[in-house]
Amino acid sequence: MVEEPTKAGFAGGGDRKGEDEQVVNPWEVTAKDGGKIDYDKLIEKFGCQRLDESLVRRVERLTGRPAHVFLRRGVFFAHRDFNEILDVYERGEKFFLYTGRGPSSEALHLGHLVPFMFTKYLQDAFKVPLVIQLTDDEKCMWKNLTVEESKRLARENAKDIIACGFDITRTFVFSDFSYVGGAFYENMVKVAKCVTFNKVVGIFGFTNEDHIGKISFPPVQAVPSFPSSFPHLFSGKDNLRCLIPCAIDQDPYFRMTRDVAPRIGYQKPALIESSFFPALQGETGKMSASDPNSAIYVTDSSKDIKNKVNRYAFSGGQDSIENHRKYGANLEVDIPVKYLGFFLEDDAELDHIKKEYGAGRMLTGEVKKCLVEVLSELVERHRKARALVTDEVVDAFMAVRPLPQMFG
Amino acid sequence: MVEEPTKAGFAGGGDRKGEDEQVVNPWEVTAKDGGKIDYDKLIEKFGCQRLDESLVRRVERLTGRPAHVFLRRGVFFAHRDFNEILDVYERGEKFFLYTGRGPSSEALHLGHLVPFMFTKYLQDAFKVPLVIQLTDDEKCMWKNLTVEESKRLARENAKDIIACGFDITRTFVFSDFSYVGGAFYENMVKVAKCVTFNKVVGIFGFTNEDHIGKISFPPVQAVPSFPSSFPHLFSGKDNLRCLIPCAIDQDPYFRMTRDVAPRIGYQKPALIESSFFPALQGETGKMSASDPNSAIYVTDSSKDIKNKVNRYAFSGGQDSIENHRKYGANLEVDIPVKYLGFFLEDDAELDHIKKEYGAGRMLTGEVKKCLVEVLSELVERHRKARALVTDEVVDAFMAVRPLPQMFG
Repeated sequence: MVEEPTKAGFAGGGDRKGEDEQVVNPWEVTAKDGGKIDYDKLIEKFGCQRLDESLVRRVERLTGRPAHVFLRRGVFFAHRDFNEILDVYERGEKFFLYTGRGPSSEALHLGHLVPFMFTKYLQDAFKVPLVIQLTDDEKCMWKNLTVEESKRLARENAKDIIACGFDITRTFVFSDFSYVGGAFYENMVKVAKCVTFNKVVGIFGFTNEDHIGKISFPPVQAVPSFPSSFPHLFSGKDNLRCLIPCAIDQDPYFRMTRDVAPRIGYQKPALIESSFFPALQGETGKMSASDPNSAIYVTDSSKDIKNKVNRYAFSGGQDSIENHRKYGANLEVDIPVKYLGFFLEDDAELDHIKKEYGAGRMLTGEVKKCLVEVLSELVERHRKARALVTDEVVDAFMAVRPLPQMFG
Repeated sequence: MVEEPTKAGFAGGGDRKGEDEQVVNPWEVTAKDGGKIDYDKLIEKFGCQRLDESLVRRVERLTGRPAHVFLRRGVFFAHRDFNEILDVYERGEKFFLYTGRGPSSEALHLGHLVPFMFTKYLQDAFKVPLVIQLTDDEKCMWKNLTVEESKRLARENAKDIIACGFDITRTFVFSDFSYVGGAFYENMVKVAKCVTFNKVVGIFGFTNEDHIGKISFPPVQAVPSFPSSFPHLFSGKDNLRCLIPCAIDQDPYFRMTRDVAPRIGYQKPALIESSFFPALQGETGKMSASDPNSAIYVTDSSKDIKNKVNRYAFSGGQDSIENHRKYGANLEVDIPVKYLGFFLEDDAELDHIKKEYGAGRMLTGEVKKCLVEVLSELVERHRKARALVTDEVVDAFMAVRPLPQMFG
């Protein structure tokens, strides 16, 4: 059961437990009987498509660069109409990217970075504009934060997001409290007209006791999928396609959006969806904001990282060196190997570690040492980049302005 | 059963029929068994207060001018905390007025003018600022109008409203599609957090089949009650009291608003509420947009008015001159007399007509002739005033701007 951390930027309560007991929605991610999430079942239930090898090869061919680690290692494993986005691109047309985050916490952890790192890759590879939504209104409503605290967290989180390296000439960051209005609000109303209360109960699991703020929110996350919500960027480009990189728990919002889109004369957004980032305690553990030892934060020092990895990272290694040499590590449950799978870019080195560790020739301590190095470097790089993101830089990214070179 | 016409500016489906069968909510006004609305029952059910003679006298004393016809003749018959507004004013402090309209029709009829004529009187008498909300978003959602058509109707209706003579130095007119955002949206979120779906079902009678646009709307009509929704006008005046003149069918919105206000640290708005303006066919008739003969429109010519009054205005006169001379007219059901009660300002003349007509000495034709004169003059005056309301004037009233002389 992985929760909180995995949210592809957004985050938010719904989809009641069915017979199968696996619950995945924007506010709850719970596997059956405390086990692992069954992603095949999820694809089947949600009705999205598996992102297969041929699609990855096609991305490489079209962009002329190797696929991102998250793509070639299956972190992003599912999609909706991603092939159509590639068709558009192949015809020499463009599209735009949309992702976001619910700013509920002060500091981001590694799981929070996953969609943004991937989105940056997509922006660089396809040279397309990007809109990033900070749902401070949603967090204010779900987490019972004040408006002011939600807005402050949105700006703090914007700094971490911008530090991922987005191109200011192609990126518009906005918070709902600062941007809802005008054409965006018109689209909210158009979407809201098409969705009954029964429908949101079915999709999100809302109940009659939920406040109407929750019930009102889905259109807010839906409408950045439509170019007409951004007249300063996409005026006259009403048919521009949208691609949304996000964790698969956000799929319900965009199933709703895709259902509504044709009814209001708009293009359906395409999606590229990731699995969940595991907690240090293992894939069946829970990354929890109340337990700082369940995740590596971008504010952690190298010492913190070393300590957390050594003490808490669930190991697939055997209980004695003797047994380890004999049976080798269980890579299926080993968190250091899983984390390296996200962040160690060198395929040959990763394969070497997996082979040696799986065969018992490499010990947990060695793998953890490697992970500490990789994560420390990543976090240090992030720390340096974030230090350069002043309030002025945030204002510049969040300014409502045209982006004349956005497709350049 | 009076519907549509009576809406105090706003208009909008709820409150299902209870045992008593009288239904009054923003979208439906239906009396029991096709009879008249029982306003005493309504006051009891809604929990508002009767606006008594002593309060009318107090208004006259405080403003130094005779009370408006609508006040001294009981058109505005109920209130919530209106006495507190007068306390504030007596202490030399100020308040602001808030009213509105759901722009669903091209031309307004006389019933639509009632709240605006009364609001103009209040603005002039108390010299206070006024905000007028045009709920184009609501009409777009309820009447299935396009966004564009709703916005166009809002501007057209704004012209008729401005033609009522509001003071541009003290009046801000806004449409939701043009103004929702910023501090206004923040307040929408604060209100929405405090209201459950069950609550709006209880207040407005929404059902699970209603779309979430309807469910999202009540906070939009609630928040103009709060000065912080208008930072360009009331910055730093968070405790400024608000008085809402409206027809009593809008009470549910403001019951909700008053319930929420203290929970979010805001002052409750006060209300002054009118009865419904009757259809030409009589108080049990229905003023209907689909039947242009049920109402006098501000676009009607003198000839139209004469024709409608003579042909359709329900008469309380007897069926023969002989019987009329003998029994006199039934003033309780006579529409010409009722309309004169709204629009003939001369108390002595009205009393004379009622006395003579009631005694059978005056005939229906004479009373109708008088009414035609009064209405023709009113409509002609409105027509001339509206002709002066250019698009530039509308833009000026709707500009988001400070009003430095608003309390002057």
